[in-house]
Amino acid sequence: MDPSIVKELEAIVGPENVSTSVADTYVFGFDSSIHRHKADVVVMPVRTEEVSDIVKLANRHRIPVVARGGGTGLSGHAVPVKGGIVLSTRRMTKIIDVRVEDLYVRVQPGIINDDLNKVLMKRNFYFPPTPGSGKVATIGGMVANNASGMRAIKYGATRDYVMGMEVVLPTGELAHLGTRTIKNSSGYQLDRLIVGSEGTLGIITEITLRIMPVPGNKALVLAAFDDLRKAGQTISDVIAYPVIPSAMEFMDRTCIDAVISAFNVNFPHSEAIVMIELDGHLAEIADNMEIVEKIASDAGAIEVRSSDDPKEMAEWVAARKAVLPAMSAMPNKASVALADDMSVPISKIPDAVVAFHEIAKKYDIIIATYGHAGDGNLHTKFLLDVNDAKAWKRGEAAVGEVYAVVNSLGGTTSGEHGIAITKAPYMRKERKDTLAAMIAIKKALDPNNIMNPGKLFEWEGLILADLRYPAEVEEDGHPAEGFGEGVE
Amino acid sequence: MDPSIVKELEAIVGPENVSTSVADTYVFGFDSSIHRHKADVVVMPVRTEEVSDIVKLANRHRIPVVARGGGTGLSGHAVPVKGGIVLSTRRMTKIIDVRVEDLYVRVQPGIINDDLNKVLMKRNFYFPPTPGSGKVATIGGMVANNASGMRAIKYGATRDYVMGMEVVLPTGELAHLGTRTIKNSSGYQLDRLIVGSEGTLGIITEITLRIMPVPGNKALVLAAFDDLRKAGQTISDVIAYPVIPSAMEFMDRTCIDAVISAFNVNFPHSEAIVMIELDGHLAEIADNMEIVEKIASDAGAIEVRSSDDPKEMAEWVAARKAVLPAMSAMPNKASVALADDMSVPISKIPDAVVAFHEIAKKYDIIIATYGHAGDGNLHTKFLLDVNDAKAWKRGEAAVGEVYAVVNSLGGTTSGEHGIAITKAPYMRKERKDTLAAMIAIKKALDPNNIMNPGKLFEWEGLILADLRYPAEVEEDGHPAEGFGEGVE
Repeated sequence: MDPSIVKELEAIVGPENVSTSVADTYVFGFDSSIHRHKADVVVMPVRTEEVSDIVKLANRHRIPVVARGGGTGLSGHAVPVKGGIVLSTRRMTKIIDVRVEDLYVRVQPGIINDDLNKVLMKRNFYFPPTPGSGKVATIGGMVANNASGMRAIKYGATRDYVMGMEVVLPTGELAHLGTRTIKNSSGYQLDRLIVGSEGTLGIITEITLRIMPVPGNKALVLAAFDDLRKAGQTISDVIAYPVIPSAMEFMDRTCIDAVISAFNVNFPHSEAIVMIELDGHLAEIADNMEIVEKIASDAGAIEVRSSDDPKEMAEWVAARKAVLPAMSAMPNKASVALADDMSVPISKIPDAVVAFHEIAKKYDIIIATYGHAGDGNLHTKFLLDVNDAKAWKRGEAAVGEVYAVVNSLGGTTSGEHGIAITKAPYMRKERKDTLAAMIAIKKALDPNNIMNPGKLFEWEGLILADLRYPAEVEEDGHPAEGFGEGVE
Repeated sequence: MDPSIVKELEAIVGPENVSTSVADTYVFGFDSSIHRHKADVVVMPVRTEEVSDIVKLANRHRIPVVARGGGTGLSGHAVPVKGGIVLSTRRMTKIIDVRVEDLYVRVQPGIINDDLNKVLMKRNFYFPPTPGSGKVATIGGMVANNASGMRAIKYGATRDYVMGMEVVLPTGELAHLGTRTIKNSSGYQLDRLIVGSEGTLGIITEITLRIMPVPGNKALVLAAFDDLRKAGQTISDVIAYPVIPSAMEFMDRTCIDAVISAFNVNFPHSEAIVMIELDGHLAEIADNMEIVEKIASDAGAIEVRSSDDPKEMAEWVAARKAVLPAMSAMPNKASVALADDMSVPISKIPDAVVAFHEIAKKYDIIIATYGHAGDGNLHTKFLLDVNDAKAWKRGEAAVGEVYAVVNSLGGTTSGEHGIAITKAPYMRKERKDTLAAMIAIKKALDPNNIMNPGKLFEWEGLILADLRYPAEVEEDGHPAEGFGEGVE
């Protein structure tokens, strides 16, 4: 990076908020994906005007700018694959205005999801999307990625809560999108276009989020099945009844075995477990509990348990959340984020899981499937020996087949983790007839292509590129940085 | 219109579905706004491929295409101000697929809102947005305009229910936007950009809508106040409690007096009435009813009534819905759609209504205010002598002041009726810093500007242009067509 540009950045945010150190440019080259790429410079603004000045500078010099929140992205959103400036929002953590009577909160992008909810919960309100990474994920990152979590079946995703935002456009100009009103039909809904655009259309500097009352009471029904189809039937029958649970979680045998063996969890050995969370008024929960129990029994559950005891429910939820660490406990294998958050129409979950099992067998890898069955959003974890280039290649081949199945079932590449690098080729295939429109919009708003370049529709080549692991799997395209540089 | 183009259109959809008759081009020049402008040709396709062929033809010859649903738009969306082709979706009324277990329905754009809901309700589901024009409004029009209605406080607007769509882009190419899954983070959310774009970015040929279970039970609390501020306090306190009603409707004195005098409705003479609808489980309704009654009494209501009797509730709702016909019963005045659906932060409703009353006094016009207080969306009806050019000019001056107040309160020009013509200058003022981005996107997707041209950011001049009324109020810009042409 040209030292004169670093000087200019220092003049904008102060020297203490600019770094070109080996440590910082290395660390800020990672997110939670399988990828990494060194940044040229890391900058930490605190005010909107500083963000604007940084972007103007970058646009003048045609330098890539990659916005970064908590770094919890699983697809490579915050990895600066073209180098340039990593703009961290970690100093932009203010809650600007809490307006429960107007059903909104205004925040800076760097505030962490759980920190925001702690403040809102004092007023009996919250921001419903609940990503697994909520202790670290920032609201800005959640908006840029349209994050959600297990409660989308009842409460929707981040995109449903964005009322408005302030954005620094790729020219450095400020724009105020959306409103602070519940309703808005005043021109193009550009705020909803920015949601999920993964930092490629601008940098969000302020967000107005709709908030909701905290649901007071909860209960859980846990049903175990000796057959995936019976689990699927239960899920469909609950929804069609209709009962809309606040969450409906799913684990396949691989996941169930893993949590039982790693943590001695008291779950039935079975082909599938469905955990149904009900919330709302106590009387409504009691009625729905009975309905759901009967549906699961009628579908042929081998065991049905219910609880509204907070301690017991917490244990069950912890067991579900233990899937990921349990996987990582397998010897010589690591769980990697490949094809990790596809969404299918809810009733297609059994077809998807059966197909994934066949693909795993064919490629001699372990694919564990769990996820948010209530909204059709599955998580598959690929367990690989990350040092083995051949295992990666088998994994990559399996990913292609997984997405072919997902698309054939009417599903989509990413339900909540986004596209960035790891899913780019599959999104491009799925969205063949809309790529031209996406690219036209990107060019119209970012003519110099400085905003998180190289991602989404721009990613070329393999997904096993810029790997953070030592394995050298690439034959062409992006040269793997490997571990070599890591010890520079 | 060049006869060879009419011939080409006839070849695409059959001669029986193309019309250049005086009657048709005249009638299709109106919607429910104050505007009108003659179409050159009216065409009624039934299949997506036909829409695509029509748009390709139009793009080749640079002919404007204006998509038209039920013609219920209040801002001039479907008025072909540049002439050209009016493409009516009235033959595209199919329900393609009802999938309650997957929480979606796929429809053609021409299906009418209430017709769709009749089918869905047989399965205990529905599409929640409830525009007042639901008996006539089409789903395509609702999507293009981001329509909503009185239940947005709890159930959101159309934008929150669009999962995916098929669109004919301005080039005539087909694009499939969004998904059929509850969650979607697969690239730009272009479906959500099309929502509310008022036919300027493409023509919607199929829509996948998220659906919801029908709420089983309802109750109403009606509270009357001798002071607007007390009504406002009640609204804020209910939300902050928090109780989220399924609707919270508001009427000011002008509206209350009008329905009492026109229909002898049994409502208390008062400054403001707030009607709070509660839905959900019976036990929850009972609890919330008590809470809401107490909040209204504590705020100083002069009368509080509650009911869960369907007949009585229907009477109250009918009285609220009688506002519009009651207004029209006033001698020598007609209610016109000027500044008719602004949205403000919910707690700002009293400030807004007080200011509107002052503006009405200043300009010697009647402004009646009612609306969806629960979501901050107000309806003002301007009562004018439509034959009096001076009354129109006073009305227009008042509109400017109304929007100045709305914006100063943190509100927005349109909550649910859209911009099109009647609100274009005010939207442009409000969205000064995002117009460039809107225009860039429009140019990128519609380089020949054939899709509903002349609306939104493109509208130049006064709002009293292309008036459907006999008054000649324009001094420059668009010449009023007046009534002359109407009798050709």
